[in-house]
Amino acid sequence: MFGVTILGNNSAIPAYDRHPTAQIVTLNEQLFLVDCGEGTQMQLSKYKIRRSRINHIFISHLHGDHYFGLPGLITGMGLLYREHDLHLYAPLPLKEILDSQLKAADTRLPFTLHFHALEKEGIIADEEKFSVACFPVYHRIECWGFIIREKKKPRKIDKDKVVLYDIPPVFYDHLKNGEDYTTQSGEVIKNEWVTLPGIPSRSYAYCADTIYAEKLACKVQNVNILYHETTYLKDLTERAASRFHSTTVQAAKIAQLANAKKLLIGHFSSKYEKLDEFLIEAQQEFPNAELAVEGVTYII
Amino acid sequence: MFGVTILGNNSAIPAYDRHPTAQIVTLNEQLFLVDCGEGTQMQLSKYKIRRSRINHIFISHLHGDHYFGLPGLITGMGLLYREHDLHLYAPLPLKEILDSQLKAADTRLPFTLHFHALEKEGIIADEEKFSVACFPVYHRIECWGFIIREKKKPRKIDKDKVVLYDIPPVFYDHLKNGEDYTTQSGEVIKNEWVTLPGIPSRSYAYCADTIYAEKLACKVQNVNILYHETTYLKDLTERAASRFHSTTVQAAKIAQLANAKKLLIGHFSSKYEKLDEFLIEAQQEFPNAELAVEGVTYII
Repeated sequence: MFGVTILGNNSAIPAYDRHPTAQIVTLNEQLFLVDCGEGTQMQLSKYKIRRSRINHIFISHLHGDHYFGLPGLITGMGLLYREHDLHLYAPLPLKEILDSQLKAADTRLPFTLHFHALEKEGIIADEEKFSVACFPVYHRIECWGFIIREKKKPRKIDKDKVVLYDIPPVFYDHLKNGEDYTTQSGEVIKNEWVTLPGIPSRSYAYCADTIYAEKLACKVQNVNILYHETTYLKDLTERAASRFHSTTVQAAKIAQLANAKKLLIGHFSSKYEKLDEFLIEAQQEFPNAELAVEGVTYII
Repeated sequence: MFGVTILGNNSAIPAYDRHPTAQIVTLNEQLFLVDCGEGTQMQLSKYKIRRSRINHIFISHLHGDHYFGLPGLITGMGLLYREHDLHLYAPLPLKEILDSQLKAADTRLPFTLHFHALEKEGIIADEEKFSVACFPVYHRIECWGFIIREKKKPRKIDKDKVVLYDIPPVFYDHLKNGEDYTTQSGEVIKNEWVTLPGIPSRSYAYCADTIYAEKLACKVQNVNILYHETTYLKDLTERAASRFHSTTVQAAKIAQLANAKKLLIGHFSSKYEKLDEFLIEAQQEFPNAELAVEGVTYII
């Protein structure tokens, strides 16, 4: 299972029971938290997502609607006796803020919090089954986007063919990794004769708060789902630019240029009670667009 | 109208749709916010309380469940173009935390935030119609209780008597302030002959997180409503003490010793789903006890 669950889809001021930004990306047993607006710990409870399963948290930037839920989430993990490590990837000033808060509360976390300052574009987490990369987006302050990718899936053994070519089972793991087999007589059995392609590896890109910037499309080429903010409808293109935000049409254009399979839009301004127009405008430019709806999981 | 509206009645970890501590005290047109746990701005929206009307915020201590909602509330006030001053009373380290957060967000508030560090017991706000005092309570870190008092109400003119004694209307305001009247012939008309007592001034005391400490009762003598924390039921008296918290019976004893008219209990541990036992235990010791229920306003 690889999917993204929306916990908050609103911009700065919570409104109409919409919450500030937070998303859970699930990749098999791994849970990643992407941004953590105020109330995220309550949203996790509401949607029955266990906070203890989150081992990696990514914070795009230090506007409060993207991280004011983090201190409560982290200190709560401590109160719940978490012992396993937690990795936090965020702009550097967050470290000082968290340290001051823990110090003021005279709190010592019972687990290790690894703080990874976001500094330059590239891979920031590289594990057996996934990698996460960050890239700059263009907001009023330092701001980062993230791509979470499955690691390339192993090839599948073609059961009839391995018998036909008489390949010993001890070599199957090498076959899955793409290696050829050489028989005792020196004959080479090509990997593609005895294996089938694995499932192609999937990816999710999160473009946090950003002004319209076509160069972002290069960073997120061919992703399965592109999340791109759409704070405003298209009639407020100038306001969007002046506040370093984007519109529906702009998000759709980035999805087109990126050749994304699906576009997910969110970070709706509190000025809009109804969201229907967001979907209509985005789909006019990019048909496979969807609204990021709180509590809904989108399969990647 | 003088009342307290509960926005959050739970202890550290939000649970069963109960929120961390926050209360709104309404005194005529004045709104005071007492503590501001995570999600307070959402609770204000839910109960249709306009954040723009809050001019004084009191933070008892720097455990997150009492202030993690504050940065979001304050920056939200800025985004909503607040221009009038805001007064914040809190332990000093909060200033540095807020300053770091504003700096990291490159945010300049469009209103003046007056930070008043809590340092010693006494009056911290003294206005025409009310005063607020703080006093130390006894928790794991520096922690303050608050008393909000109406200013003494003026005496009422007894209309028949002022005519009988032939007192000129220009002197009525002096009568309301308790002065005697001296006639031109030198005769003294005693104030109490021509006026009636005003409504006695009312008071609300908030004992934030604290271990059981009988000396608190002296600080909150004769208040109309005493809010006292009850994190645990009475069978967990030892646990309460070890964590610098109180039980139902302990809160009730303080209310008794203080001669409070009513006791309001809250800050319930997340280990309790049902709260019935809290009320039963508290009322056994102090019959006029009530649970602090979210969304309910208790008239002082």
